[in-house]
Amino acid sequence: MPTRNPFTNPDTRSAVEGPFAREEVVLANRNHGIALEMLRHDVTPAGLHYLLNHFDIPYVSEADAAAWTLSIGGTVERSISIPLAEIKALPAVTQRVTLECAGNGRGLFEPRWPSMPWMREAVGTAEWTGTPLRAVLDRAGLKPETIDISFHGIDSGFDKSNEHEYGRSLKPDLARDENVLLVWAMNGQPLLPQHGFPLRMIVPGWYGMASVKWLNRIEARATPYQGYQQVGTYHFRQKEGEQGTPITTMRVKSLMVPPGIPDWYSRKRLVEKGPVTIYGRAWSGGGTAIARVEVSINGVWRDAELDPPAGRFAWRGWRLAWDATPGGYDIACRATDVAGNTQPTEAIYDRGGFGNNSLHSIEVFVR
Amino acid sequence: MPTRNPFTNPDTRSAVEGPFAREEVVLANRNHGIALEMLRHDVTPAGLHYLLNHFDIPYVSEADAAAWTLSIGGTVERSISIPLAEIKALPAVTQRVTLECAGNGRGLFEPRWPSMPWMREAVGTAEWTGTPLRAVLDRAGLKPETIDISFHGIDSGFDKSNEHEYGRSLKPDLARDENVLLVWAMNGQPLLPQHGFPLRMIVPGWYGMASVKWLNRIEARATPYQGYQQVGTYHFRQKEGEQGTPITTMRVKSLMVPPGIPDWYSRKRLVEKGPVTIYGRAWSGGGTAIARVEVSINGVWRDAELDPPAGRFAWRGWRLAWDATPGGYDIACRATDVAGNTQPTEAIYDRGGFGNNSLHSIEVFVR
Repeated sequence: MPTRNPFTNPDTRSAVEGPFAREEVVLANRNHGIALEMLRHDVTPAGLHYLLNHFDIPYVSEADAAAWTLSIGGTVERSISIPLAEIKALPAVTQRVTLECAGNGRGLFEPRWPSMPWMREAVGTAEWTGTPLRAVLDRAGLKPETIDISFHGIDSGFDKSNEHEYGRSLKPDLARDENVLLVWAMNGQPLLPQHGFPLRMIVPGWYGMASVKWLNRIEARATPYQGYQQVGTYHFRQKEGEQGTPITTMRVKSLMVPPGIPDWYSRKRLVEKGPVTIYGRAWSGGGTAIARVEVSINGVWRDAELDPPAGRFAWRGWRLAWDATPGGYDIACRATDVAGNTQPTEAIYDRGGFGNNSLHSIEVFVR
Repeated sequence: MPTRNPFTNPDTRSAVEGPFAREEVVLANRNHGIALEMLRHDVTPAGLHYLLNHFDIPYVSEADAAAWTLSIGGTVERSISIPLAEIKALPAVTQRVTLECAGNGRGLFEPRWPSMPWMREAVGTAEWTGTPLRAVLDRAGLKPETIDISFHGIDSGFDKSNEHEYGRSLKPDLARDENVLLVWAMNGQPLLPQHGFPLRMIVPGWYGMASVKWLNRIEARATPYQGYQQVGTYHFRQKEGEQGTPITTMRVKSLMVPPGIPDWYSRKRLVEKGPVTIYGRAWSGGGTAIARVEVSINGVWRDAELDPPAGRFAWRGWRLAWDATPGGYDIACRATDVAGNTQPTEAIYDRGGFGNNSLHSIEVFVR
């Protein structure tokens, strides 16, 4: 048994190499990525969208949901509390949005920060139904001195001895962007508990940490929000102790459906010789469109065929026809967006394991 | 690149201690357990039910599903192929069933077999809608010489150099039991891709490996089925090379909702002093009812209050009121079924990591 409050202990984590700690595996067992073969679906089916929750998933009963309110306070003209039913009565939009965890690829870094050990699978695309956040912000009326707005869920816990409810902030201009939504449905169904039932945010084009779940409180601020999830983590950092750079929009990236069939344990791939279609998805951040996807087969790069765009904030499908002949192959894919951003061959090192958009490569053996 | 077929390499795995291999983490990232706090739900919401797939999740389009057939051959009076639509027109039943992965708890063994590194979370309860399997078996007519019946999914791959489609068998009496179902819906919705869309089996009371997903072929047999998933794995074994004992029904077990709030990384728990309700679930195998659940707080055992039964094959809820005073506590729970089976304090060692039903214990600090 713990003999004193273990949460006030200093965090003793440091970057590691090699095998994975039990704590990392516990996080991997409760959170999950998309199974890469399910990239075939334009919209990720329920339960296959990546999931990363810092604290416990709140238990919200139907009665709790019926009584749910969203409060808006701070530097506003009118502090208000809006019942969920009123929010759901506002004009609704449905938007297809690709979300990726900022820590996707953390497990591929050496050394690696001990946390959720994502390889490449922390992504998904859903159709979110809700109303623009600005509808409720404008009801409260942001005062001119407002320079930051924080958003808070009911999920709480500790991180590095900091006790807090999960919270993140956005600058007023972004918070009032028509694409930033308060949502109550995902793929045409009520939000699942693990995705924020009954109310969450969707900040399209940003990594997932901005899309606060189980949202019940908004605070307009005359000074920058200093919550742990805003300033203590989700920063690009090269070394311990530096403040670093805040993480915002997603970096350009592509993933492919592993061709062929797997070995259970190693996940190595066997492909039958003959015509093979390699499928994948590509996306970038901030609403920037994908311009090009290239595929390398044993170092020879070819352009993939792009599917029609599926929305400003949704991943774009791509495919490449390959006449596979027996032997061993390394297959890789690389996306470039219309702003000219392209994926790096080697990951850009980050101490916390954030923003890894290095090339996805797969070994296959064709028989 | 691989220079020869890597799937014919001998499997070099052996039992290990200590940290976890990258391959184990990759499996943990694609599969997932229930988040233990979601044990609060009588029926596990979509995406939170445990998921263990050996090979890739098949991509089955709506058109593929519309053309889906189930063939029944071997030692039958009439080899037949039944369209899915005909199966769905048979009399439907809905049954609440708790399923647990046979490998649940593998990651807690020392030494540990390298595979999906479950701690305690590989369980879930769903409401499955389908028709008794015997309806289709009787349509084909089992010949008297039938002593085994194998069931095959379309998911395929390698395990220890064995290439196969996932397959399992049942003895004819069990296969014709009214509770063994062919199902097409889960919690009132079409099956999700990862749970076997468009057709799977549910074998209540057994560990999950018996409930074959993506089912498209049944073979009645005059000799025992020798498929890899039947004889190569899913056996209790003490040492390498022995045949061991086939794994069948679930062992008695209980889990609790961790009280309080967590630390993000360590998942240690902080509880506020005062009245606390500890919630949990208990189940046993083969339809055997739960008789008792006890909870230990720092070694003092008390009986939990049992919720009403929720069906012969569904877990049973339980709760214990605790007046928490500041300090450190070890909390554990133990279930006993009506046949007198009870959970062991120490896990019964198994080389492959199967059947671990040792006590669930949690450290908490009350402030």
